[in-house]
Amino acid sequence: MASESVSSQAMMGGDGQYSYARNSEFQSHGVETAKAIINRVISDKLDLNRVASSSSKVFSIADLGCSVGPNTFNAVQNIIDSVKLKCQSYGHDKLEFQVFFNDLVSNDFNALYKSLPSDRQYYAAGVPGSFHNRLFPKASINFFHCSYGLQWLSSTPKELNDQNSPAYNKGRIYYSRGPNEVVEAYSAESAKGIESFLLARAQELASGGLMALIVPCLPDGISPGECSVLASADLLGDCLMDMAKMGLLSEAQVDSFNLPSYFPTPQELKALLKRNASFSIEKFEPLALSAQRQLATNTPTVVSHLRANLEILVKEHFGNGIIEDLFDRFSKKIDESSVYSQTSVYKPLVENVIILKHNT
Amino acid sequence: MASESVSSQAMMGGDGQYSYARNSEFQSHGVETAKAIINRVISDKLDLNRVASSSSKVFSIADLGCSVGPNTFNAVQNIIDSVKLKCQSYGHDKLEFQVFFNDLVSNDFNALYKSLPSDRQYYAAGVPGSFHNRLFPKASINFFHCSYGLQWLSSTPKELNDQNSPAYNKGRIYYSRGPNEVVEAYSAESAKGIESFLLARAQELASGGLMALIVPCLPDGISPGECSVLASADLLGDCLMDMAKMGLLSEAQVDSFNLPSYFPTPQELKALLKRNASFSIEKFEPLALSAQRQLATNTPTVVSHLRANLEILVKEHFGNGIIEDLFDRFSKKIDESSVYSQTSVYKPLVENVIILKHNT
Repeated sequence: MASESVSSQAMMGGDGQYSYARNSEFQSHGVETAKAIINRVISDKLDLNRVASSSSKVFSIADLGCSVGPNTFNAVQNIIDSVKLKCQSYGHDKLEFQVFFNDLVSNDFNALYKSLPSDRQYYAAGVPGSFHNRLFPKASINFFHCSYGLQWLSSTPKELNDQNSPAYNKGRIYYSRGPNEVVEAYSAESAKGIESFLLARAQELASGGLMALIVPCLPDGISPGECSVLASADLLGDCLMDMAKMGLLSEAQVDSFNLPSYFPTPQELKALLKRNASFSIEKFEPLALSAQRQLATNTPTVVSHLRANLEILVKEHFGNGIIEDLFDRFSKKIDESSVYSQTSVYKPLVENVIILKHNT
Repeated sequence: MASESVSSQAMMGGDGQYSYARNSEFQSHGVETAKAIINRVISDKLDLNRVASSSSKVFSIADLGCSVGPNTFNAVQNIIDSVKLKCQSYGHDKLEFQVFFNDLVSNDFNALYKSLPSDRQYYAAGVPGSFHNRLFPKASINFFHCSYGLQWLSSTPKELNDQNSPAYNKGRIYYSRGPNEVVEAYSAESAKGIESFLLARAQELASGGLMALIVPCLPDGISPGECSVLASADLLGDCLMDMAKMGLLSEAQVDSFNLPSYFPTPQELKALLKRNASFSIEKFEPLALSAQRQLATNTPTVVSHLRANLEILVKEHFGNGIIEDLFDRFSKKIDESSVYSQTSVYKPLVENVIILKHNT
């Protein structure tokens, strides 16, 4: 058990109370806010001549880490509308659109396909697999979109589960309260994942193509424990430790459970992106989210959101039996804490929209 | 109820006793036997120059009506091996392969993706939707494969449920014992479906591309009622009528239920294929199936095979409650009949492998 590491899992499928489909409003605001920026970049930077002069006249879009609808459908429709508008203004021939929806094999593709917009004007395909590896033939995609995906790790660092390592993460499930070694192990794993992501996309993106990323980041200048989302993950860890002390599960189970996500700072992320010479950074800016979104943090919303993201991981590690009890405890713990109320101490993540262009 | 028509449904998903995955050995023999023919045609007729000279160097394969594995994986691997062999002998640059697995939205794509071969050397994508419509951008596919798909109708003819039509199919669920009007209604619906299939593929198949079809046909010269598979569908209808007489379901429910499949004769199919000028028929021949396959017709095998194909349709129309009772009765009815034993009266379907080439 102690040597097991948690691997990444897809969001909660179906359309139940804690499904991603019904608990992704948070991400939806981000996707909506990013639209204007993506539209402007398509208008200014997208090289349509290469698509319009090729024999195929197909514009291919891939949404990486799409989960299920409706966020992914909104995001790709916006890209298509924007490309069509540009085509019209340049008098280009009519393009056909092909959209690839990618997520892990464990994603609920059946649910995704059943909810595909019936009036869509594109050919839809699903691509199962990790975006840390190659997913598409060379130079076959004109536009990549990936929102709220890059904070996920393909697996948690092995040393977190190694009792002899200084990065052994005993009594915790995350890095935010951990010693430097734990934070560094997470950071290194994240860097490796983002590098392999960029390496694969550099092969797959067509010449002159664009990539739009929405990445939630830890604001520069604060420590992980001062960020509300990371601090609430610590509270979930506290609940698990409480349950271990009551004998409802074993401490070793908690020790070997670590959440597979990491939020780089904008500075950290920018440095990683610059290392890959295939891309130029056309834009890197924080999303100007509405004040309403920033404050929409009542406990039930926070818990549902985190549960939709984490339930499958927790189930896989601890079994189905603890879920209701755990999230009840978590809800109380959030209520008693000041994680979302004391805004002078705890800061929200900052979501950055990043546009990369293929250099060749 | 009486005006409802049965629409096509995917095969039984998952990996349970009556899943398609565990009851597709029948089709598997056909796919295996067709391999040698497909290999020869790729070697002789496939125009690789057009792929190898294009900028993309991607060879795209689509399996239409793929259901779940393993048949579809075997079929596409054979095509890839064959194309690679041809590439080697012509000294062509290394191609990349992209495989699109298509089936209806109701297909169990989640199960398909989980069983994808881990050592596959192609990029896999799933395409949900009916192959009677467009599924892919223009000229984007180099090789289409479709085995045991074209006998399915997208819906049963409406007139079968119209009490005022001479094609009203009262007391039956199929055309094999029906009057001419019923047979003609089925035949016309099938022709319409195959025509729309060809029309879509003519747009999607790349110049010089090939299409391999395996289509089970009613042998020329016998009546539908003399074919064992069609006669066993009649027996299933008899079971439903028996249950209606016992008050377990209503006769109107049986009257409005009609199976959405039709087996054209080779002659009928050839005429339909010739009508579409985009394709030339490179090959049209019956599969030389092993004697063992032809005789593998013990009752449990027959019933499991038909159940994997029909259970979802029956459930959708009659509800879950009748399934076990119905298939128990069906098993007894098959045992008592001479449908699979009296081979001088009842003939098996003849499976044809057909290779079409895009003319342009």
